[in-house]
Amino acid sequence: MATIVFCSVNKTAQSTVRRCSMSHLKRLASSAASHLTLSPSSSKPLTLLPGSRWLSRGCGVRFVSQGTAGRAAGGRTRKGALALSGAAALTAAVAGFLANADHFQRADMATKVPRAAAEKEREQEGDISQRCRGFMSPPVTDIGVLQGRSGEMRTRMEMLIMETQADFCNALQEVDRWQRNEGGGGISCVMQDGKVFEKAGVNVSVVFGNLTEEAARQMRSRGKVLKGKDGKLPFCAMGVSSVIHPKNPHIPTVHFNYRYFEIEEEDGTKQWWFGGGTDLTPIYVSKEDASHFHNTLKEACDKHHPQYYPDFKKWCDRYFYIRHRGETRGIGGIFFDDLDSPSQEEAFDFVKSCARTVVPCYLPIVRKHLNDSFTDEEKAWQQVRRGRYVEFNLVYDRGVKFGLATPGSRIESILMSLPLTARWEYMHEPAKGTLEAEMLEVLRNPKEWV
Amino acid sequence: MATIVFCSVNKTAQSTVRRCSMSHLKRLASSAASHLTLSPSSSKPLTLLPGSRWLSRGCGVRFVSQGTAGRAAGGRTRKGALALSGAAALTAAVAGFLANADHFQRADMATKVPRAAAEKEREQEGDISQRCRGFMSPPVTDIGVLQGRSGEMRTRMEMLIMETQADFCNALQEVDRWQRNEGGGGISCVMQDGKVFEKAGVNVSVVFGNLTEEAARQMRSRGKVLKGKDGKLPFCAMGVSSVIHPKNPHIPTVHFNYRYFEIEEEDGTKQWWFGGGTDLTPIYVSKEDASHFHNTLKEACDKHHPQYYPDFKKWCDRYFYIRHRGETRGIGGIFFDDLDSPSQEEAFDFVKSCARTVVPCYLPIVRKHLNDSFTDEEKAWQQVRRGRYVEFNLVYDRGVKFGLATPGSRIESILMSLPLTARWEYMHEPAKGTLEAEMLEVLRNPKEWV
Repeated sequence: MATIVFCSVNKTAQSTVRRCSMSHLKRLASSAASHLTLSPSSSKPLTLLPGSRWLSRGCGVRFVSQGTAGRAAGGRTRKGALALSGAAALTAAVAGFLANADHFQRADMATKVPRAAAEKEREQEGDISQRCRGFMSPPVTDIGVLQGRSGEMRTRMEMLIMETQADFCNALQEVDRWQRNEGGGGISCVMQDGKVFEKAGVNVSVVFGNLTEEAARQMRSRGKVLKGKDGKLPFCAMGVSSVIHPKNPHIPTVHFNYRYFEIEEEDGTKQWWFGGGTDLTPIYVSKEDASHFHNTLKEACDKHHPQYYPDFKKWCDRYFYIRHRGETRGIGGIFFDDLDSPSQEEAFDFVKSCARTVVPCYLPIVRKHLNDSFTDEEKAWQQVRRGRYVEFNLVYDRGVKFGLATPGSRIESILMSLPLTARWEYMHEPAKGTLEAEMLEVLRNPKEWV
Repeated sequence: MATIVFCSVNKTAQSTVRRCSMSHLKRLASSAASHLTLSPSSSKPLTLLPGSRWLSRGCGVRFVSQGTAGRAAGGRTRKGALALSGAAALTAAVAGFLANADHFQRADMATKVPRAAAEKEREQEGDISQRCRGFMSPPVTDIGVLQGRSGEMRTRMEMLIMETQADFCNALQEVDRWQRNEGGGGISCVMQDGKVFEKAGVNVSVVFGNLTEEAARQMRSRGKVLKGKDGKLPFCAMGVSSVIHPKNPHIPTVHFNYRYFEIEEEDGTKQWWFGGGTDLTPIYVSKEDASHFHNTLKEACDKHHPQYYPDFKKWCDRYFYIRHRGETRGIGGIFFDDLDSPSQEEAFDFVKSCARTVVPCYLPIVRKHLNDSFTDEEKAWQQVRRGRYVEFNLVYDRGVKFGLATPGSRIESILMSLPLTARWEYMHEPAKGTLEAEMLEVLRNPKEWV
């Protein structure tokens, strides 16, 4: 077990990552520009996002490569550290993007700009090798293979999730690449203990193999009819997922996940479906933030079906519910699963819209609160809320439970969603009339924000 | 739902608690004396256990009373705060005990003193109302009721768990009393964010009612044959449990739990069994501490059966295993369940020995490391280990899982075992040859300490 594989280390990795990051950030800036009215300035100083580790130190990116075996199975972790000489260039490019994002935020929070044309242009799925240059790393599947089946949904989805990862990775502290023994693999981008972000991770994973008995049973119990060939059900699953825990208690935590599943049946036909969602976990209620977040999601949903937003908003509140506390985890967003209609093309279009809405949903809120001052009491309340986040993720989250119970899972990726720090105070109950009590009230009685 | 009930507030509560605490601490000191060779000095200053909140502030004890309804069910928490004028007396008494404990530790760590006679004397179960004066609060069951059935095991066990709580409560920050709607109740003693203890809780719970279908099913699946009367199986369950998380990373976390279960069948016969255990979770390996801890447990076990220690030590390592990490939670101790042989009397004797071994197992270790200095790095490693503690408790612990899934459970008591603070670092792996790596090695390959 546990062999690895960071495909391109040393010079190759350095140049690849430097190039990718540059172009990815340029693309990000231009994509922001195409969405929104931007002021021309992009020359703000590096301190715009003060202190994410790679910004304030600017000294390198650590590559961590290791196997997939659980430690229980005797697998051991290996690390390799490598300083990037090109980190300064990367830093500058990021700062440029963030400078744009600053205006992007103001524009977006102020007026809604029609974005259909830009969206359409962006949706054109161009040359694969060219698009790959914008990614955080080469995609999980070999580029030649992707080119050979460029029309297939699994290729298009893999390109989308790689692109979503790159789009969202405005911060990059550690990049590591892993593979499952069963086939497929993943790419994680993690940043930890920066000045803005306590912990931030964006994972891409692409896995294929044959469904286990247990997995097939679970899927059948959800109503799927699956006929295997010689008892085997070849599957392919892929997704991008992210959790961002900022340090400042006035910047909310965000989580998103978009995924695609495909199973080949006996007669060669494929069953497929999409799932995903984006949701926000603020520490304090901000009606303006909540309304921006939900409106941006609603706008993306409404282009596809008028029931998507209201249905998936409810589903989200139901799913992210900490039953033993009688609280939702946060103020929700959207959540859906088993989406296999009206057609594969239309479902993919919807997922694409959702994935591309992650940055405009969240970044404006980050920018807005970047320099908010906060007290020790506010930080302590954040830590208590982080504790609830841990409770949800370890006790209820289906993905985490499934991952922890699956031999060969990569625990560090599964638990990447946990905050760097959390706190459990006995009998913590905010006093009436406080902002903390206001937050709890919202979590106990989910609201409509649109 | 959710009415409460701190039986005696105001003057009554004040005097009760003051009296209880005084006598309980005197008894603690004398019990320590009866176990061990003590030097005569008991006049050390208050700074012996510097900074547990009640010591350093000495300003009062907060009574928290509330209902049992989950917040999901719309139950709300009510608090009442009450300063104890007698807190200074309490503080002095505690300091006196701790002064003794200082010597008690040295004596105990140095030479093993025969304790059979003292043990025997202490095991005499004297007058109930007199013994109750030493408890942290009046027992859960009315004293008159206990006196009326003083020979029954459920009375004797309730007295033992109340006594164990009092024995172990060398610290007392918040005392609250609660009741389940189903009947029965509990008493929690919690201390939080002191200078020595980050979070410390000692819970007593006594619950009775009729088994739910699900609970009966689970018990039958463990091999129990249960015949109910009209489908009803009246049960009675009680136990004392505690988790202590110290601040200093050189003082280990300790957990113990001793419980008794009784079910009445159709023909009036009672099925009963005991369960429990004590285990240690150090942040750094100390062979001396581990050996003291395990030897003290072994000594208690060996008086009852030569196989108890080896069997229950293995059971403990198996139970406190974080499968997804391939690590045990700590260095173990003992764990057992369904103990219903060789006779009720003998099983109770064994549990009594275990419960009374908690203080001599742990206190010497606390005392030894009380003034150890520590670095930021050591504190950070402690926080990472705390994260693993949370993972075990939320993902695997049967009691927690059962509690979270049981309507009407008191969540704050169930999650009292979680540390005040914890940390999840991405890809944390101590460098080879460090003390942190040595700890991990022990957790990955449980050792024999005796």
